[in-house]
Amino acid sequence: MKAAIYYGIKDVKYEEIEKPVAGNKDVIIKVTRAGICGTDIHAYLHGGDPVGIHPGNQFGHEFVGIVDEVGSDVKTIKPGMHVTINPTSRIPEGKGLNSTEIADMSGAFSEYVIVEEAKLNENIFVLPNGLSFDKAVLIEPLSVSTHGVNRANLIGNERALIYGAGTIGLATISALQSKGVKDIIVSDINDFRLSLAEKLGAITFNSSKGNLIEFVKEKFGVLKGNSNEDMINIDVVFDCAGHPSIIPEFMDNAKTLSKLVIVAIHANDATISPLWLLAKEVDILGSRGYLPSDIIDSINTLADPECKLDSIITHVYPHSDIINAFVQAADASQSNKVVIKYED
Amino acid sequence: MKAAIYYGIKDVKYEEIEKPVAGNKDVIIKVTRAGICGTDIHAYLHGGDPVGIHPGNQFGHEFVGIVDEVGSDVKTIKPGMHVTINPTSRIPEGKGLNSTEIADMSGAFSEYVIVEEAKLNENIFVLPNGLSFDKAVLIEPLSVSTHGVNRANLIGNERALIYGAGTIGLATISALQSKGVKDIIVSDINDFRLSLAEKLGAITFNSSKGNLIEFVKEKFGVLKGNSNEDMINIDVVFDCAGHPSIIPEFMDNAKTLSKLVIVAIHANDATISPLWLLAKEVDILGSRGYLPSDIIDSINTLADPECKLDSIITHVYPHSDIINAFVQAADASQSNKVVIKYED
Repeated sequence: MKAAIYYGIKDVKYEEIEKPVAGNKDVIIKVTRAGICGTDIHAYLHGGDPVGIHPGNQFGHEFVGIVDEVGSDVKTIKPGMHVTINPTSRIPEGKGLNSTEIADMSGAFSEYVIVEEAKLNENIFVLPNGLSFDKAVLIEPLSVSTHGVNRANLIGNERALIYGAGTIGLATISALQSKGVKDIIVSDINDFRLSLAEKLGAITFNSSKGNLIEFVKEKFGVLKGNSNEDMINIDVVFDCAGHPSIIPEFMDNAKTLSKLVIVAIHANDATISPLWLLAKEVDILGSRGYLPSDIIDSINTLADPECKLDSIITHVYPHSDIINAFVQAADASQSNKVVIKYED
Repeated sequence: MKAAIYYGIKDVKYEEIEKPVAGNKDVIIKVTRAGICGTDIHAYLHGGDPVGIHPGNQFGHEFVGIVDEVGSDVKTIKPGMHVTINPTSRIPEGKGLNSTEIADMSGAFSEYVIVEEAKLNENIFVLPNGLSFDKAVLIEPLSVSTHGVNRANLIGNERALIYGAGTIGLATISALQSKGVKDIIVSDINDFRLSLAEKLGAITFNSSKGNLIEFVKEKFGVLKGNSNEDMINIDVVFDCAGHPSIIPEFMDNAKTLSKLVIVAIHANDATISPLWLLAKEVDILGSRGYLPSDIIDSINTLADPECKLDSIITHVYPHSDIINAFVQAADASQSNKVVIKYED
């Protein structure tokens, strides 16, 4: 089979390798679409070892496909089914905090992927009729966003602020909308990505061109806190950017009983005031990866015709042209999600 | 009527003042028991202005009593009913983060208290038959603890760690037990207070005499995290002490998906790692004051004969001897909750 093999910085080769062989409990999937994740781009631009993509490995972990072969013990999965997987189910015990450690094991950029010890709704998931591969390829990143939204335990009438209009920030819009949330502001410094957020129905703001907090106050009004301080009228904030200014900005402006969900990787520590945390009764919640229930949630979100998340796919490349797909994906000014399309 | 009036540091006088007069919508309560709160002690020892207890004022906000008089428009409250109030319902708009700003307005250390615009289960609560005044006087501090426990949204099978065996820490034991939580470790440096925690059924540890984390590991075992690091087997931590070591200790040892509820006032900022917060998926929750629903919860907790929270009452003084009650309450080595008993 054909596969993209990672060899190092800006060194990915399209090669012929052995197709995996299914054991009794395994499933082989013929990949139909794969997404290039930020982690894959990081490996391409800066080196893969820290994120678990090692030289000589297959890689890629966002994909959908068709069941090609099932082991004799597998009863719930049939050849021909349209499926996706849970790539994080393969994280070995004690194998690092970074779930992308698994990225090299799935091999979504290979023609065929093996799911060992396949278990329905645990590590393999069937797509509903009517959900196209073109849209379903977003299940994995949407699951990250869905997990963050589910961590916040929302009712649906909340006002939300998302920092970051990358794939996770954009997918958070859809995840929120699937819960009924309508009032969503997305902040970023990249106009191209903000235009994608706007297409999805969010209010957008380029924070390099003005004061986000003033913009939020203008849009949703100003509330007064217990010490007569201004509070923004936002119930839940999603940090999908990881910028060091986000946590202080939240602390300076948060509404009483609001929530901050941290989905992004931060490089630095942050200073918080426990007294303020108490006085405001805010929740600060970490969100990492996703659960099988989040994957199912995301499949349902994408299956809804109202969900237009596939508009964030800016480029589609054939598998044979995956090297150029990486060059394109590395340019954030004009691309967002880049998808690899396999031959049928 | 007789009332304790606050004049300044170590200057409280027992005086004769005017009894309040009920308007059409008001209720007058004859106080039967009042508790001395940490805030009252702070005012006594260090000055009351920062906590809203000003010279010349009545003060005290933890109390129970008998309805003495009701305004003509009050239909749900009858003379003779045993009741308590929500002292925080009187916090004026924009009146400071410190809910004790209201302390001077309730006047629990006066013989009679007025509840303006009395509304059942909002600012006035009826005690169930069989709940004695001696026990019910703890409703207010227990409500603070109950709110913290309710913020954590527990199932009941959790393991809990409480920092601080003052009244709020001790009442947190009862609040947890009312939810079914059995495995509770309480840490403090005061052996006398730890002995009260032990009476309530908690496992206790004096952290001035050893390493709390090692003790917790010994009691509940050690878990391994994603990076093979040790994690304590604790699902929820209550910070009822406010010591600067607590947040770092939580971050160094917390179990994945565990929760930290900050109930105590902290004097200093704390440094957190957002990356760690994400990787561990922990919740950091601020908890302040209580809601009417927490008061009702606390009344039910105390009405359960299994609840022995009244064992934390170390001293009872007659109202006429309130000056000595303050002297006693100020000595934390031999007292915890000091209660004022009024003449029937």
